[in-house]
Amino acid sequence: MASVTDALDTPTGKALVAADQNGQNAEEDFVDPWNVHTSSMKGVDYDKLIKKFGCSAIDDSLIERFKRVAKVEEVHPLLRRGVFFSHRDLHVILDCVEKGQKFYLYTGRGPSSDAMHLGHLIPFLFTKWLQEVFDVPLIIQITDDEKYFWKDLSLEKVKEMAVENIKDIIAIGFHPEKTFIFRNLEYMGQSIGFQETLARIKKRVTFSQNRGLFGFSDSDSMGKLSFPFIQAVPSFSSAFPQIFKGKTDIPCLIPCGIDQDPYFRMTRDVAPRMKFLKPTLMHSKFFPALQGANTKMSASDPNSAIFLTDTEKQIKKKINKYAYSGGRDTVEEHREKGGDCSVDIAFQYLTYFEENDEKLEKIRQDYSSGAMLSGEIKKILIEKLTPVVLDHQTRKESITEDIVRGFMTPRQLAFDF
Amino acid sequence: MASVTDALDTPTGKALVAADQNGQNAEEDFVDPWNVHTSSMKGVDYDKLIKKFGCSAIDDSLIERFKRVAKVEEVHPLLRRGVFFSHRDLHVILDCVEKGQKFYLYTGRGPSSDAMHLGHLIPFLFTKWLQEVFDVPLIIQITDDEKYFWKDLSLEKVKEMAVENIKDIIAIGFHPEKTFIFRNLEYMGQSIGFQETLARIKKRVTFSQNRGLFGFSDSDSMGKLSFPFIQAVPSFSSAFPQIFKGKTDIPCLIPCGIDQDPYFRMTRDVAPRMKFLKPTLMHSKFFPALQGANTKMSASDPNSAIFLTDTEKQIKKKINKYAYSGGRDTVEEHREKGGDCSVDIAFQYLTYFEENDEKLEKIRQDYSSGAMLSGEIKKILIEKLTPVVLDHQTRKESITEDIVRGFMTPRQLAFDF
Repeated sequence: MASVTDALDTPTGKALVAADQNGQNAEEDFVDPWNVHTSSMKGVDYDKLIKKFGCSAIDDSLIERFKRVAKVEEVHPLLRRGVFFSHRDLHVILDCVEKGQKFYLYTGRGPSSDAMHLGHLIPFLFTKWLQEVFDVPLIIQITDDEKYFWKDLSLEKVKEMAVENIKDIIAIGFHPEKTFIFRNLEYMGQSIGFQETLARIKKRVTFSQNRGLFGFSDSDSMGKLSFPFIQAVPSFSSAFPQIFKGKTDIPCLIPCGIDQDPYFRMTRDVAPRMKFLKPTLMHSKFFPALQGANTKMSASDPNSAIFLTDTEKQIKKKINKYAYSGGRDTVEEHREKGGDCSVDIAFQYLTYFEENDEKLEKIRQDYSSGAMLSGEIKKILIEKLTPVVLDHQTRKESITEDIVRGFMTPRQLAFDF
Repeated sequence: MASVTDALDTPTGKALVAADQNGQNAEEDFVDPWNVHTSSMKGVDYDKLIKKFGCSAIDDSLIERFKRVAKVEEVHPLLRRGVFFSHRDLHVILDCVEKGQKFYLYTGRGPSSDAMHLGHLIPFLFTKWLQEVFDVPLIIQITDDEKYFWKDLSLEKVKEMAVENIKDIIAIGFHPEKTFIFRNLEYMGQSIGFQETLARIKKRVTFSQNRGLFGFSDSDSMGKLSFPFIQAVPSFSSAFPQIFKGKTDIPCLIPCGIDQDPYFRMTRDVAPRMKFLKPTLMHSKFFPALQGANTKMSASDPNSAIFLTDTEKQIKKKINKYAYSGGRDTVEEHREKGGDCSVDIAFQYLTYFEENDEKLEKIRQDYSSGAMLSGEIKKILIEKLTPVVLDHQTRKESITEDIVRGFMTPRQLAFDF
């Protein structure tokens, strides 16, 4: 599974075109698991995307129900601020919680480079909160096979990348007795339950359905053509008999980037024919690149993102030098007209990392009114992000091979099914 | 892998057409892993098939070299009588033996019904001889996944069929410390080496190459489209690290029905790009149905074949009643013109099961001359086959679940690599 922002990380994306004079998208947004294109500085038009994909908006009444069911006073900032903006069948999971039944969480990541960037953290931060609120098992799939099939990399290299990324994920703070992390090329060779679930799915999807959903061409490898089913498998509890004691009817909630939706549309389509449950989805928006929401974060351009390996100095320099500003050309003009928060990357990043709503609102007002200058909002962001990154590095240093092995060992978790 | 005769066992074959008046095939023979068609009572034209597939005939000089290298006075009847008639790179294995290097044997079977028939025995009898002559590991793949994808059967049912077939195979007399038998849906979930080898192959074959070789259509399931790669995997020693200690360069010899060749053409094509060795092949002809070489053996027609579960009475009745005869319409005519061994099923079956060349030659002469009548040659066959089948049943009765489990446990065999 590619995370929220992996789609932005692809080397195959077309050149992005600038917004036209009316601020309208010069071309239609395009979103699939490998490519995300938008020409708007404000990023993808998510309302349109919800209609196109046929999913549902997460609205205020759903958030209210979520609070009641989860017995929380407030939901996670990423949920209340609309980063997680869309869903499929979230009511099924809420019904399940109301009845006192357990479900499980499944998310994942495609290890695209040694270092993860801030955008890669987002789905995991939200998933961690979900796990803590509901106290359920979490399964994290690392799609080393996906990277092997799509890139010119050896098996050894994708394994190395997977393990490095798993250390980053563990450093976010997941509970070792409640979380199973696996890389496909290992766990597929360790689990008959996984293989049987895979066979059940592959029997029921035709080549033409597969091509229709993912746009495969004649020259694509059979590795690529087979991958969507591997990502589908963890949606079913049958793939983890060691956790669910062979039960095939434990509901699954998948927090993921909206670009991953095609995989799970296929999964949900095939589920009833397997007599299995459809997984529930919560979709997030894309985390923007430093240069703006119409550009790409890329491991090959270190200045396009803040990486979890960056130093204090690099963070400061990148934000000051590269973060796209919604400020005006001169101080005078800025004081008069105010900054544009909807395109300002410093403000956008703060909506992800400043948890205090009042503080964030104050920043929004001050920046929009012109009372706060671009240099000032960037300084606030630098002060916010520096400890996020440095504390992550400290936690990561303490993640030993043994700890990694512990998370990756197929085992029963601290739940009784 | 389907065995020599599984292709004849398919329910999807077109109606077979009769030979035309000139004895020529009214239509071209067709052979692929799922369908074998011929209109000739003499069966498929194997000389044409060799040219079409681009493999090589096993000729006298190759058999002479085989005898020298293997240090045997005579080769197995199935080899010297041309049942194993074609090969790819057999010299590679013979070179390897001359240098004192080890190789391994790989064959397989698709569990198509609870009961195996005589035709299913053939590749295993020959493989057993090869194993004894060369003292090498033998790996037997049971393609339960293939049957799951191609037929309307549950995972439970194909597992049951696989285990029943494995008992039959063990009863043939394979050495428990030198033979590893696995069913795909189990071993694929037990072996990272298998998964990694599979990924290496799938990365290097495109959808269009796959469709070109196997003729898949848009409405075929992704399970079917993925299967050829599963059958390719055991051709590489990397798939069995427990046996070959992680070595990826142990040569492989595959005895199989000629209908299986497309799988291994693909395998041999991709091998150099993986920097792995091409497997060597020895191909067998098809074992004919009782009703003649232009008809099909089928589990759904119990009178089309002798099954390993048949009683003494059934064997006698089937041969007397259904075995296609090359005899003449009247005794007088038969005495005058003699029988036609090239289409007579009793004689054909004796070429598989009567190991004594002199006896067989005497039968051929007597039947051809008219000295021996159809009833007499059938009687000889009944006397030959009855103990083959009944002894098999006795041996099979002693195969316990524990013995089966022993053969199927991934482990080091009695060889040091």
